[in-house]
Amino acid sequence: MQVDGKHYRSIWFDDDSATVRIIDQRWLPHRFLIVELTSRKSFCDAIRDMWVRGAPLIGAAAAYGVAAEMQNDASDSALDEVCNELQQTRPTAVNLVWALNHMRQLLQGLPEQQRAAIAMKRAHEICDEDVECNRQIGLNGLQIIKNIAENKDVGQPVNILTHCNAGWLATVDWGTATSPIYHAAQADIRVHVWVDETRPRNQGAQLTAWEMDSHGISHQLIVDNAGGHLMQHGDVDLVIVGTDRTAANGDVCNKIGTYLKALAAKDNEIPFYVALPSPTIDWNITNGIAEIPIEERDGQEVTHVWGKLEDGNLASVQISPDGTAAGNPAFDVTPGRLVTGLITERGVAPATSEGLAAMFPKFSG
Amino acid sequence: MQVDGKHYRSIWFDDDSATVRIIDQRWLPHRFLIVELTSRKSFCDAIRDMWVRGAPLIGAAAAYGVAAEMQNDASDSALDEVCNELQQTRPTAVNLVWALNHMRQLLQGLPEQQRAAIAMKRAHEICDEDVECNRQIGLNGLQIIKNIAENKDVGQPVNILTHCNAGWLATVDWGTATSPIYHAAQADIRVHVWVDETRPRNQGAQLTAWEMDSHGISHQLIVDNAGGHLMQHGDVDLVIVGTDRTAANGDVCNKIGTYLKALAAKDNEIPFYVALPSPTIDWNITNGIAEIPIEERDGQEVTHVWGKLEDGNLASVQISPDGTAAGNPAFDVTPGRLVTGLITERGVAPATSEGLAAMFPKFSG
Repeated sequence: MQVDGKHYRSIWFDDDSATVRIIDQRWLPHRFLIVELTSRKSFCDAIRDMWVRGAPLIGAAAAYGVAAEMQNDASDSALDEVCNELQQTRPTAVNLVWALNHMRQLLQGLPEQQRAAIAMKRAHEICDEDVECNRQIGLNGLQIIKNIAENKDVGQPVNILTHCNAGWLATVDWGTATSPIYHAAQADIRVHVWVDETRPRNQGAQLTAWEMDSHGISHQLIVDNAGGHLMQHGDVDLVIVGTDRTAANGDVCNKIGTYLKALAAKDNEIPFYVALPSPTIDWNITNGIAEIPIEERDGQEVTHVWGKLEDGNLASVQISPDGTAAGNPAFDVTPGRLVTGLITERGVAPATSEGLAAMFPKFSG
Repeated sequence: MQVDGKHYRSIWFDDDSATVRIIDQRWLPHRFLIVELTSRKSFCDAIRDMWVRGAPLIGAAAAYGVAAEMQNDASDSALDEVCNELQQTRPTAVNLVWALNHMRQLLQGLPEQQRAAIAMKRAHEICDEDVECNRQIGLNGLQIIKNIAENKDVGQPVNILTHCNAGWLATVDWGTATSPIYHAAQADIRVHVWVDETRPRNQGAQLTAWEMDSHGISHQLIVDNAGGHLMQHGDVDLVIVGTDRTAANGDVCNKIGTYLKALAAKDNEIPFYVALPSPTIDWNITNGIAEIPIEERDGQEVTHVWGKLEDGNLASVQISPDGTAAGNPAFDVTPGRLVTGLITERGVAPATSEGLAAMFPKFSG
């Protein structure tokens, strides 16, 4: 999407320099840094140390990492090594595993001299496929926003609340939860976005607010506590969030706090939608709350907050007493009964076993 | 309550120096500073600039402020001036108005030479009355905790979630929501407290976590997003929060985010109690959500977070892009239907018009 009037993807191939470039997201929103990835090490660092994050973007970066390695050394051993090294950067990332297996299978049967070109072509395609998937999600979500806009008074924006960053920075472009928003803006529908800051890591404040600001979409940052009050008072027309993993029964695992917003939406009869590319549906899980394991992360994410000091330097401040123990579950599961619909690239499915099975009959067997 | 093994109130008269002392709460949890208040100006500063906060504590500080002035100058004009000046420090604080009107009425009919002694005696009594009220709240809440403890496996703590700081730092001693917790600890009932950090001002992280740590009560800090997930997984037995204002129908106005926790408690069939001294009941308001005006505070509270840098200095960091607009409603209203009971100094009342009227027949008109 746009940054200061110029279109960016979160990862791209720069034709002039013939290198892969990314936005080093560690410094957002305070620094907008573009980094060239060339060596195997630079790709590994970028994924491991979260210069790039978000499942689709990690997959794309891994594919480019393999392709870049093939330009340097297209031997079987180099292919093995680069795949193994990249896989270890974030061993639990499903898209990373998928992209690496995919590239390895594609390349290992080919003569060495063809590998570099085919790998790079496939990496480009993986990016384009992600963009197209998110574009379809956006078009499907756009219908929902359009319907709401038609029932608003003239000149009144559609107020959309979102949690965390399921934006273009987490994908290659468009994002998932944000794609309907960008499409609405493109269709000249007035939208206003309530951006949950999303403690503890503040992806909303750091990334979603930056996306909205950079693309020129009306928005306000709020604390995660505020959404319920806004919904009670008619200030939210629609909630759209992303998901890290969707169970086959429509339960949705997303950033911690999503469940609370879904409860408030239900209590105030406000539509609550989850945007997702279908590969994030885990067909093996039939009860999200009982079966999806929730990562418990370092308490320091809770006790410390990172940002920009008055002098422009970046630093963390400790908000609690020395030595305070913190609990830090990173995700929660929103039961499908609280979800109005799942916005996928194929259409909007009910968040039920039947709804998902009907939309994806091939996978749900 | 205890700080490093020594008992403190949040405001007290020091016999040796014959002065009023407070904990300057602006620096907690990073600095524990005790300040002597002597001049009229120092009392005004302490209330206006939030060295002390919390309705009961503000009332007590105002009463002491009048008493201290009477020691310097007990004339009618001095009484007028100190009341007027103190009232302007936080014009919307109900307890402040109450305490000043109370002191003025008590003193204005008295001969000047009696005023200082009577004013000081009354200020002491106001403090003691607050402590006794909170003690009764604690004893009533203790029964609830005891009942839960009896149904837990041996050795398992009662897990209590609280939001914001309705602790002894907001009152003279015991606190309201924390009083049952301190009483349970005193009765050797094992408790573990989940402390919501309470964005945007982080009163949970700064004050409640400090109280729990200082008194030696097992606790963990969590982000405001985490409570729903913990409730889904059986890690919360009970929620107790305070309130700034309770409507006659049992709707409860408290720090922003309380409503979301009440929804999650309801969804998981976990008891959700609100602790309050009966003077915070507003008998004129019969529909809390519709009638209680919600203060919208400065967006900088959302975009900036204060804490301790690695070098020990205190500073704020900006978490969002430059110029991000923020929405900052300071409170929300939890409908009485989500509240299991109101823990008052008289007993536990249902959060309904009938429940409150039955417990306080004199006030409910």
